[in-house]
Formats: sequence, structure tokens, C-alpha cells
Amino acid sequence: MEKRNLVFIATSLDGYIADRKGRLDWLTTIPNPEQSDMGYNEFMAQVDALVMGRKTFETVCGFEGDWPYAKPVFIVSRTLDTLAEDYRDKAELVIGSLTEILEQIHNKGYHKLYIDGGVTIQNFLKEDLIDEITITTIPIVLGGGTALFSKLPTELEFTLVSSKVFLNQLVQNHYQRKG
Amino acid sequence: MEKRNLVFIATSLDGYIADRKGRLDWLTTIPNPEQSDMGYNEFMAQVDALVMGRKTFETVCGFEGDWPYAKPVFIVSRTLDTLAEDYRDKAELVIGSLTEILEQIHNKGYHKLYIDGGVTIQNFLKEDLIDEITITTIPIVLGGGTALFSKLPTELEFTLVSSKVFLNQLVQNHYQRKG
Repeated sequence: MEKRNLVFIATSLDGYIADRKGRLDWLTTIPNPEQSDMGYNEFMAQVDALVMGRKTFETVCGFEGDWPYAKPVFIVSRTLDTLAEDYRDKAELVIGSLTEILEQIHNKGYHKLYIDGGVTIQNFLKEDLIDEITITTIPIVLGGGTALFSKLPTELEFTLVSSKVFLNQLVQNHYQRKG
Repeated sequence: MEKRNLVFIATSLDGYIADRKGRLDWLTTIPNPEQSDMGYNEFMAQVDALVMGRKTFETVCGFEGDWPYAKPVFIVSRTLDTLAEDYRDKAELVIGSLTEILEQIHNKGYHKLYIDGGVTIQNFLKEDLIDEITITTIPIVLGGGTALFSKLPTELEFTLVSSKVFLNQLVQNHYQRKG
């Protein structure tokens, strides 16, 4: 079974995934009368499970409405020992180095993984563990916030797989790690 | 005459315009057998003059071959008093606040300006003085270097004018300041 770690995320023109106050409302300011999901459901259909950081998990837990994921969710954390009881049926804590964590998840039969959350994506990139990145660029310069990318020990070359425009305003580029 | 300040620049996937060592060679690693200029000449044809920072000017001065610009070049600097004699026929130093500098340049009859160089672009953005940005994204994560964007006092909304793919790998998005 081919193992793939995939990122699917939206950023501002200046590369932020949340604004200075941690808000995400700027993601949805472009009118979307036909409720396009911008490829999200198609992306989700191909992944086996999600891997996200503690902070993203807490953000998702704070969303109103039903639990948003139909796939298994694994939480990577350096600070949590256990998940709050309310969430134990929804997510599972995984502990260890990224390689160990991935091995645990692969051993459970999940191979195509949606890697989510700023810090987690950065940590995966630092170890060159991201195979595909889909970035949807929102036409706003936030001027500050939580950056998608961080400093890396080495350059990583990617190949453009596709480039699409949604809502006449959002450019979504799909990249694959080269070689 | 309509005054416009335009940016035309290439960045890595993680938003850098030069790598950690100030190198630009990663800009040209994608094979370009037909020598596409990726819209550069068309862009240049519509501008009246260039405005660039001291550092970009020095980089351009270091390029081999003929002086690359057919249009007037204005250098903004907080450290230079005069330009080296060799360059006085090629560029003109402008001194003052950005508003003062722009007034000087407009008074000479140049209204559509190509704003170039990382620090200069950042300073123009800080004062909301950029009307259009064309960004060509190279499919590489550099992991460090000179960033295109910096912290800004306020968010700036843009409108996507066009999105093109060059060489099957480079995505070029053209944005206009909203409103």
C-alpha cells in the first residue's frame, strides 16, 4: 500500500493560515453562492485518516455543529497525555517521533494521511515527510498571523500537478514532492 | 494621468524572493526551452519607470551583460547620498518619504511605476501604496531567505485579475488592490 502524507490548506497571499488574532473568517469573505467546497470533499474521499496537532484539534473542537470528520483522526501532541473524555470516540492521541507516529498509524491500516495544522505541517516538512500540498490562496495580505511555512534545514522541490481557480478569486495549486 | 504602483515578482512556495545566501538561481531551474519571458516584456511595456531599493539596485549592477532597463530607474535609499558615477546615466537617486518620492517621480511625468526589491515593496505595502501585484510562484520550498512580505499595520484586500501557468510549473497570479 502506498503511503502518502497530504496537505490541503488555504493561506493568505502572504502565507498565513490564521490572522493575528487566530481568526479564520477572512477565509470565507469571497462570495460563494453555489457553496463550492473547492475540492475539499474530493480530497477527503481519498484520504484514510487525519493527523493533526493539538492546537488545530482544539480549534476544531471549538467549532459549532457536529464533529466534522468521518475518517479517523490522530492527534500528535508534545503536551497532552490523554484526550478529554468527550473526544475519545472521535480522535486518538499518538505519541512519539513523526516516524514512530506514522508507523503506528500505518500499522492500523491507514496509509493516505491528511496532515493538518500549522505546527504539524511544519514538523512534517522539516523531516521531508510531505508528499503532496494543495494550497488555496485567498486574495488578501494579512500582514501578520500564523504562518504556514517555517524555516527548514533544506530546500524541497515540488512539481505542479494542477492549478485551478475557484469563485473567480481563489487559486488552488496542487503540488507533489519531486523525485 | 492615472498613477499606479505595480509589483512583478517571483517567489518560492514559501514566499521568498532570494534564498538564504541571496541567490536567485532557483528561479530558473524549470526548463524553459522556448525562452518564455512569462509576461515580463508585456508588463515592462506598460510601465513608465522603475523604483527600486538600494540593495536591488546593487544586485542589478552586479549582473553580467548590458544594463537591463530601457526605462528610467529611480533608486530609493536611506543610506546613499549619491550614486556611483558609473551609474548616474542609468539611475537617479530619490530621497524623502515614499509620498515625497512618488510626487517627485510623478512631477517628472512618470505615473505607472514598477516597484521592485523586497524592502521597497514592503515599505510601499506598509503605506498601502501598491495597486497591483503579479506573483509568479516557483514550485520549491526554500525554507529560508529574503521574504517578499513583512508584517503590516493593516490587512490589504486584493482582487484576482488573472491566473496563468507558465512552463507547466509556474503559476502567475495578477492581483489588483480592492476598492
